[in-house]
Amino acid sequence: MAERAAARLYLSGLCFFLQLLTIVLFATFVRYSPESIDLCSTEPSCSQTDPSPTLGYPRFRDAYVRALLGFGFLLTFLSRYGMGSVADSLLIVAFTIQWAILAQGLFYFSLNGKIHVGAQSMVSVDFCTAAILISTGAVLGRVNPMQMLLMALLEVPLFACNEYILRSLLGVSDSGGSLIIHTFGAYFGLMVSRVLHQPHMDKRKEQQNVGHQPDVFAVVGTICLWVFWPSFASATTDHENAEPWAVLNLYFSLAASTMATFVLSPILYEEGTLQLAQLQDATLASAAVMGMAGEMLSTPFGALTAGFLASQLSLLGSRFLSPILRSRLKIEDTCGVHNVHGMPGVLGTFLGTLLAALATADVYGDRLQRVFPLVADGSRTPSEQAQWQLCGLLITLLLAALGGGLTGALLRVKVLRSPPEKNELDSKVLREFGFSPEPIHSSLSVLVQVDEDGCDGGASSEERGTTA
Amino acid sequence: MAERAAARLYLSGLCFFLQLLTIVLFATFVRYSPESIDLCSTEPSCSQTDPSPTLGYPRFRDAYVRALLGFGFLLTFLSRYGMGSVADSLLIVAFTIQWAILAQGLFYFSLNGKIHVGAQSMVSVDFCTAAILISTGAVLGRVNPMQMLLMALLEVPLFACNEYILRSLLGVSDSGGSLIIHTFGAYFGLMVSRVLHQPHMDKRKEQQNVGHQPDVFAVVGTICLWVFWPSFASATTDHENAEPWAVLNLYFSLAASTMATFVLSPILYEEGTLQLAQLQDATLASAAVMGMAGEMLSTPFGALTAGFLASQLSLLGSRFLSPILRSRLKIEDTCGVHNVHGMPGVLGTFLGTLLAALATADVYGDRLQRVFPLVADGSRTPSEQAQWQLCGLLITLLLAALGGGLTGALLRVKVLRSPPEKNELDSKVLREFGFSPEPIHSSLSVLVQVDEDGCDGGASSEERGTTA
Amino acid sequence: MAERAAARLYLSGLCFFLQLLTIVLFATFVRYSPESIDLCSTEPSCSQTDPSPTLGYPRFRDAYVRALLGFGFLLTFLSRYGMGSVADSLLIVAFTIQWAILAQGLFYFSLNGKIHVGAQSMVSVDFCTAAILISTGAVLGRVNPMQMLLMALLEVPLFACNEYILRSLLGVSDSGGSLIIHTFGAYFGLMVSRVLHQPHMDKRKEQQNVGHQPDVFAVVGTICLWVFWPSFASATTDHENAEPWAVLNLYFSLAASTMATFVLSPILYEEGTLQLAQLQDATLASAAVMGMAGEMLSTPFGALTAGFLASQLSLLGSRFLSPILRSRLKIEDTCGVHNVHGMPGVLGTFLGTLLAALATADVYGDRLQRVFPLVADGSRTPSEQAQWQLCGLLITLLLAALGGGLTGALLRVKVLRSPPEKNELDSKVLREFGFSPEPIHSSLSVLVQVDEDGCDGGASSEERGTTA
Repeated sequence: MAERAAARLYLSGLCFFLQLLTIVLFATFVRYSPESIDLCSTEPSCSQTDPSPTLGYPRFRDAYVRALLGFGFLLTFLSRYGMGSVADSLLIVAFTIQWAILAQGLFYFSLNGKIHVGAQSMVSVDFCTAAILISTGAVLGRVNPMQMLLMALLEVPLFACNEYILRSLLGVSDSGGSLIIHTFGAYFGLMVSRVLHQPHMDKRKEQQNVGHQPDVFAVVGTICLWVFWPSFASATTDHENAEPWAVLNLYFSLAASTMATFVLSPILYEEGTLQLAQLQDATLASAAVMGMAGEMLSTPFGALTAGFLASQLSLLGSRFLSPILRSRLKIEDTCGVHNVHGMPGVLGTFLGTLLAALATADVYGDRLQRVFPLVADGSRTPSEQAQWQLCGLLITLLLAALGGGLTGALLRVKVLRSPPEKNELDSKVLREFGFSPEPIHSSLSVLVQVDEDGCDGGASSEERGTTA
Repeated sequence: MAERAAARLYLSGLCFFLQLLTIVLFATFVRYSPESIDLCSTEPSCSQTDPSPTLGYPRFRDAYVRALLGFGFLLTFLSRYGMGSVADSLLIVAFTIQWAILAQGLFYFSLNGKIHVGAQSMVSVDFCTAAILISTGAVLGRVNPMQMLLMALLEVPLFACNEYILRSLLGVSDSGGSLIIHTFGAYFGLMVSRVLHQPHMDKRKEQQNVGHQPDVFAVVGTICLWVFWPSFASATTDHENAEPWAVLNLYFSLAASTMATFVLSPILYEEGTLQLAQLQDATLASAAVMGMAGEMLSTPFGALTAGFLASQLSLLGSRFLSPILRSRLKIEDTCGVHNVHGMPGVLGTFLGTLLAALATADVYGDRLQRVFPLVADGSRTPSEQAQWQLCGLLITLLLAALGGGLTGALLRVKVLRSPPEKNELDSKVLREFGFSPEPIHSSLSVLVQVDEDGCDGGASSEERGTTA
Repeated sequence: MAERAAARLYLSGLCFFLQLLTIVLFATFVRYSPESIDLCSTEPSCSQTDPSPTLGYPRFRDAYVRALLGFGFLLTFLSRYGMGSVADSLLIVAFTIQWAILAQGLFYFSLNGKIHVGAQSMVSVDFCTAAILISTGAVLGRVNPMQMLLMALLEVPLFACNEYILRSLLGVSDSGGSLIIHTFGAYFGLMVSRVLHQPHMDKRKEQQNVGHQPDVFAVVGTICLWVFWPSFASATTDHENAEPWAVLNLYFSLAASTMATFVLSPILYEEGTLQLAQLQDATLASAAVMGMAGEMLSTPFGALTAGFLASQLSLLGSRFLSPILRSRLKIEDTCGVHNVHGMPGVLGTFLGTLLAALATADVYGDRLQRVFPLVADGSRTPSEQAQWQLCGLLITLLLAALGGGLTGALLRVKVLRSPPEKNELDSKVLREFGFSPEPIHSSLSVLVQVDEDGCDGGASSEERGTTA
């Protein structure tokens, strides 16, 4: 317990140092953007200057709708990992917001040695936060808050760098972040998880999944994602006079992926009952696949098909691929980010590449200028655009793998992983609920016992650990 | 268990077939609406063309605020019927969205043999989803997911047909859907429930209500409805320069109905504690009554009075009418949709009829054009408009009763109701929580025991089943 | 039990009387504002007339985003005081909405003897509701619903009066309500709490805090506040073309306060685990401090620093000041409103005063007209504005203390506090969950026992009562 207290004090000190650092850096470099300067030409998610001044307001509000994304993410974590993860997740979000302002400011919003902050930078920051949370999902439960903070400290600049290369240098169209958010976040996190692998910790992990929270949060989280994500999608892509394809496509994708879960789940799992977590995965996967392709798809049935496939891919992945990843490649994936963000993100990128190759002014009309500005102004052919989209995938994977590997190696430094952290999460979750950590088998035994009786189908606890 | 598994596989097959069917139909018929075509003249909820191009955007966002309605609905179900219902509800929503696009597209959005989908069609689809969810609420727990899917399959076209007759042919003003959503949905569901009545199932039903979820979801659901419904109302009726009467009226109606619940509840029930479910009913009832009259009421105290009465009606109905419906008419009403949607919807229609009869240009000013376009341009007198409003009620009741009866008869086909479904929901709810279905009396006995001790007032478990 | 039933009937009668009274008053005085009249010149939160007609719509929607504030508040209460408080909170909200329309209408919206209600009045009403809920938080659990209703009946006019004096007479800039909402609400409630102090009730109070809800609602409430409050802030201050400083400042303030909690919590409390309630307090405190200063701060690092300090202040207050308030000053503070709203509100006022004194046209540009209109048009110097801001603090404290004292004295009238209310809340909370109130120690003993074992750190139950 003395060691635990010491660990909390270390964390306290680290937080204090980082907060002081950001305050000093903010005081030195960050200013609110002057009203008169139009930063739109350099900012990432606006591919066309908006002459209308009234756009500023609704657009900005979307930044907060987008924050709901974080809401959904947090709730997702909750359902997987108990409430102990909320405080740590909020810590990561709070730090990432400040750090991303600085890191992204260097690439996008700096002017005369100052970083100019405005509504648009909050949108970019929220993108970054989403990626960091995805990465965190891969290692949750096996890192302590201090390691999570350091991971964010290193991942944020790399995210900003990758975003800058893809959007500004290569001209890749990825308004919803299939590549930039989902793929990058997932593979970075998985790589960290791989490097952090420690044989003796895996057993503990599987036990933990058994006694986790009943699905209260899974329910609320699923519904939230279902309801709010289309709003999120609309934030980055909509323009006032155009039909919001990105939102409609996402909507259809969600509907089809939900149906797909009901199709595949009874086939994959003998136990009849559909787990809500599977619906949640389907929702996330269908959103990840629409990240890039959402504003490119010009036919509703395309969105239905893509959502249907993404959800199937995610389900198959969690059934067959995750156990292989764990046993062969020693990649532990706490929240299943590979199935939910990684593979659907890559699938979405392939779909986006295909659509870019087929893009013509006939189908898109004025929209071409927004979706593929470089194709519209003639500096690229559609097939060149498609090549660059693919190239973006390779660069993202490379940066994520390299960065994740290095970060993981750094997090293995011994001073960071003091022994008591090993079972910190167990005890924290339990203590939140008023149970003492030691006599867990006596106080929780009834619950766990009944739980194991409950799954009278064929699914062993290991399988459920993978899929739930 | 083998039969259960088979039932899940049937459901899986049905989902697969329906999804494939919609994808094919979408590929054949559905296109995104071309940017240049103004569909406003034919779409249901816009009674006036909007010259301002900037309207499109905020209006569309409302479609998603509206989706929150579904959020509230789902949470309402949760509080009544445990978390097992969420997955099924989402399945119904996912299917209804796709199916309603096709069904409503035939009536409203088709052009040159193609159905044109845009932001406005999503609004219409959300209306339809609300009605289907209300109908589902009447039969929840006594139908299996496959039957629910088939019910949605049949109800969606009928809803679109009824909406088309009322709005386009008869010129009935019903922007918030007192008639189209609440009354239609409630009576359709009740009729299905009547036809599906099976004597031996009722006993099981009442037992189930005892052990349901503690009111966590009731709390969140009530607050959500309270907070979000006014936004929902604003989606269909607001025009930029006008004071949003519909929203303000709903707001006042909500406030008065909450007070009314505190007035009547202690008189009706000896047990002192106000059940949150009663507040939830009052919220829904006060919204249903404002559906038609919301944009017609020109005085705030009218909204206060209507909300007060609707809430009283709902409470009295659940206390005295529901037991009669159940014992005499053999109409089981799982979520009390008759008290919460049916009667307040009819009350709202009467109020709307009265207001239509009294409508003059003096009171409404420019608003007359929006609320009663046919009166404003002189093709109808106010009293004629009132007659058509009443006529709409009759047609809605007729279509709902006929359609519900036929649908119920179809759902009784033996192949659909395989024996294991009978106690599916019990076991599903319990299994989600990790209890095995068989030894329910041993594992849950403590909870249930204490629960029964808890209600030390005079309310028997049957009464609580009706009202909670 | 007969007395309990009688008490509920009294409440029922009071509700009926109040509802009837408001309906009559509404019928006599309240009308929807005619479309043509521009009320902007007299309404509180719009310091500049808006020429653009399109503003009306998004602005109005914010009124409902703001309602989310209430959502957060309610959930905050939930986490502190169990679900029994929701019904009562909704009753208070429902009554306050109607009553505040009348009270604020007298000061702001009356014209020719009629009160004109429109979108703007709903915004003002929501401000008032927030203040009433804060006051309620100070006395929750020691007053019955009837006393809460009477408190609202008296506090609403006083709130409207204070708002009118500060905004219209003194020209104090307080768009986010540091002074008007947070400081007034907190000190009014604390004063009522002081006057209502009864020695024998304190012991019961502390016991109650032990057995309260596990942190399900704390989690959801914290995330909601985190996510939605910036939207709330944007409602009152944003203008379309300006960078939304108030929102950005609040965002940074939230981030820094979250970090600050992680810094200070392990130092103040030996028990290692961070309580989510502490994060919630930090969120609320950082919002309260930004109420006045939010739109005045022109540098992001200022917001970081203010949020950091406010959170520290709140934590230190709940650790050291609350026990002193309780033991020495006999001020019981159920939900810790002094630490969370009172002190941060005063801190925010001091910060606002400082910023007002330093205001120059160089820093603010066009924004000066919006933030300090009287300074911009030359009728005041910045230092005079600062004096008036401080003067507003004194008047607010004076009115809150006087009004709270009188209200508390009135609530002590014996007929209002019938004996059974004393343990009403215990039994209500328990009964909602299906436990009988009498054998609480037998049925809950396991849970409570384990709970007390769980806190194996040094925090006694009294400390946890203060801070959780």
